[in-house]
Amino acid sequence: MNQQKKGTNRDNNHYNPVSVIRKKRDGETLSNEEIEYLIQQYTTDAMPDYQMSAFLMAAFLNGLNDNEAAALTHSMLHSGIIVDLSHVPGIKVDKHSTGGVGDKLSLILAPIVAACGVPVPMISGRGLGHSGGTLDKLESIPGFTVDIDLNRYKEIIEKHNLVLAGQTEEIAPADKRLYALRDVTATVESIPLIAGSIMSKKLAEGIDALVLDVKFGSGAFMKTVEDAKKLAKTLVGIGEQFGKETIAYITDMNRPLGNAVGNWLEVKESIDCLNGDGPSDVMEISHLLAGTMIYLGKKADNISKGIELSRSAVSNGSAIQKWIDIVKEHGGDINFIKNPESYPKASHIVDLNSDADGVIAAMDTYLVGMASLELGAGRKSKEETVDPQAGIMLHKKTGDSVEKGETFATLYTNKKETLNNAIEMLKSAYSIGEEAIKPVRLITHKVDKNGIHDYSD
Amino acid sequence: MNQQKKGTNRDNNHYNPVSVIRKKRDGETLSNEEIEYLIQQYTTDAMPDYQMSAFLMAAFLNGLNDNEAAALTHSMLHSGIIVDLSHVPGIKVDKHSTGGVGDKLSLILAPIVAACGVPVPMISGRGLGHSGGTLDKLESIPGFTVDIDLNRYKEIIEKHNLVLAGQTEEIAPADKRLYALRDVTATVESIPLIAGSIMSKKLAEGIDALVLDVKFGSGAFMKTVEDAKKLAKTLVGIGEQFGKETIAYITDMNRPLGNAVGNWLEVKESIDCLNGDGPSDVMEISHLLAGTMIYLGKKADNISKGIELSRSAVSNGSAIQKWIDIVKEHGGDINFIKNPESYPKASHIVDLNSDADGVIAAMDTYLVGMASLELGAGRKSKEETVDPQAGIMLHKKTGDSVEKGETFATLYTNKKETLNNAIEMLKSAYSIGEEAIKPVRLITHKVDKNGIHDYSD
Repeated sequence: MNQQKKGTNRDNNHYNPVSVIRKKRDGETLSNEEIEYLIQQYTTDAMPDYQMSAFLMAAFLNGLNDNEAAALTHSMLHSGIIVDLSHVPGIKVDKHSTGGVGDKLSLILAPIVAACGVPVPMISGRGLGHSGGTLDKLESIPGFTVDIDLNRYKEIIEKHNLVLAGQTEEIAPADKRLYALRDVTATVESIPLIAGSIMSKKLAEGIDALVLDVKFGSGAFMKTVEDAKKLAKTLVGIGEQFGKETIAYITDMNRPLGNAVGNWLEVKESIDCLNGDGPSDVMEISHLLAGTMIYLGKKADNISKGIELSRSAVSNGSAIQKWIDIVKEHGGDINFIKNPESYPKASHIVDLNSDADGVIAAMDTYLVGMASLELGAGRKSKEETVDPQAGIMLHKKTGDSVEKGETFATLYTNKKETLNNAIEMLKSAYSIGEEAIKPVRLITHKVDKNGIHDYSD
Repeated sequence: MNQQKKGTNRDNNHYNPVSVIRKKRDGETLSNEEIEYLIQQYTTDAMPDYQMSAFLMAAFLNGLNDNEAAALTHSMLHSGIIVDLSHVPGIKVDKHSTGGVGDKLSLILAPIVAACGVPVPMISGRGLGHSGGTLDKLESIPGFTVDIDLNRYKEIIEKHNLVLAGQTEEIAPADKRLYALRDVTATVESIPLIAGSIMSKKLAEGIDALVLDVKFGSGAFMKTVEDAKKLAKTLVGIGEQFGKETIAYITDMNRPLGNAVGNWLEVKESIDCLNGDGPSDVMEISHLLAGTMIYLGKKADNISKGIELSRSAVSNGSAIQKWIDIVKEHGGDINFIKNPESYPKASHIVDLNSDADGVIAAMDTYLVGMASLELGAGRKSKEETVDPQAGIMLHKKTGDSVEKGETFATLYTNKKETLNNAIEMLKSAYSIGEEAIKPVRLITHKVDKNGIHDYSD
């Protein structure tokens, strides 16, 4: 009587969704097998959305520890294909950013790192809400296609040490379904769930090592440096559990990165950077991330030497040449890379001028992103399309002096109907005061397998 | 720009499901309008199950305060009809029990209270799991029907001061849908959600006042007296918010109530009680609950006088006569009420005899309920049917002495295949020791609008 069915721990008959949900609800730790069971049941439609959303809320409120987050990542990763890049010589390294406003770093560091001999398999996403996405930026280059199949993906990276692609249905399909459910059940902003989502996609690319840019501040998803540190620690922990060396930097997103916000405007700024003429904040982080990737790719003995190689790739022209080559390979019109000024302009271009003398005391970077979205550069829902020409050039940023009548920002749009709205948003994003606030460090921490370190360099 | 739509606070356009879920997720208090919005959206299929289950888990973990619980009750109550019993003279009073093993109190107190002139509109549920249900017990009387429409419901209570019915689709349909969802998302055991479910159904019956029997212990849903106190306080708070005087008692369910467990066996025991020959624990709570109902129905100046009237209704025969009348009205065969011994017996009747001399030190009342379910008296899922003849007679309970060879329990079943399983369960439910444990008080607290009071009488 009451005989238990015999089997291994992996026997799914030992579990049921309600008991696993209840366990997490009661603050207990789930086994790898229980998490695998949930994800497997969900992705095979054996477990309905309403049970998964109850689990997600329980996980949101009671947390998942590092092992649980790694098990979740493992289950989502193995819900799809893991690209095999063993035919490509070298240590494959990618970079992921948690997203921000004006973050065009991928467009700069990818060709730098590839030019230094480290293969970069880069699968990127689209922008949503205030935050831009690398795919939208790439597609602002006429002809550039990110929709490539697996064979073409392998072919391009083998040829150029670099490939730039969009996520396909084959990569971590469980994450795609889970993310869509989290979006409509108020369970997005959970550090272990975010970490699992990021890492399941990155680990599927075929990487050997990973560099992470975890942003905090008004323009980032993590509002505080403390949350950014937690996320970075979780991400690095997962990477290391999968045997992929992972280094994260915590960087400030209380100011937009560089001066350009918007798809083509950011591509143009990244070309300036590759030509050695970029804004200092963009170049500082680009060289740090690129240098770290070059170090992880074992083309430099340490990160400092990696940064030196990164600077050389810009100064000797190999990085911009790599960029021209890869744009051409993806079908993009390289005339716009060689001569960015020839790109067609938006129909409405409006300068914002200061009412008074003063100093930019602070910027609400989220509002800058939202103003850019109003201009057409972003999308409120996944179905919307973006306008490559739309965006903002920020001539002044936090800490800069401004004179009465001086232009502090210029708006570009083809949507006259929302222009005034964007102008109001952008104006209110700027706080002009009498003196500059204490400058914030751009890069605050480095996080690696040994822990969290204050960053000063 | 950004003009807000004008409207009252009840304008549902001001809300969206994700923002209300997020608010509860973040531990904030929801307004009445927000809760009404959720329930209204859910019951009109404008909000899917997966959003409601995320909300339920957030409410489970972050709680709902008394106002939120009352708003939830209000929304669920108004999702269906509220019976109008204004044509029936007198103050209508019902009783609700949170459920247990051997709890046949409704069958005893309903005719007592009705015989004392207080109208009792009683809508009951079916048993599920270890716990029995009044409807199943009533239906063990051949011919008795609980499926009556609203007109018949009003007609019966007007004629007899009593009606016994099953819940219809018209009563609190939102609760029915929510309960089904809670059952599969591990969100059942939440005090405010339980309270909202109970009260929305009771308030729909057309009552003016309510008595509650909130049970704790191994055979109850609330395992501790502390949880029972919290639930009772929430239930009384909701009742008072709706202007219905509500009194709750906290009672012990570490022992089954009375000696009979199982549908007909319990009906038979309740007939014994109405004939003045019932077990003392059953009679003590029955008279207390009935006396309180009589007091709330203003047929006695205080509860003590109500209890006196209750005892008189048994001793003068008016209660058993009321029972015969109401069984007849509902189509039941009154010969079995008048002569319970004539009821057909189960095909298998097994005595359990003690292996040794001793004292019943403790009983796992949950296991007694589960043994009864194995015998056919209960249902594991809503779709199963129950066997009216199946059940257990407990000849010995906690504190009783037992001699070697003496029968301490008798099992009744028509299912030979699970009999041995039930025997093992029932045996393991009994702990026989050398001395009696400290007797537990049957009724520990009274809870009313003035708070929680220790009960001693």
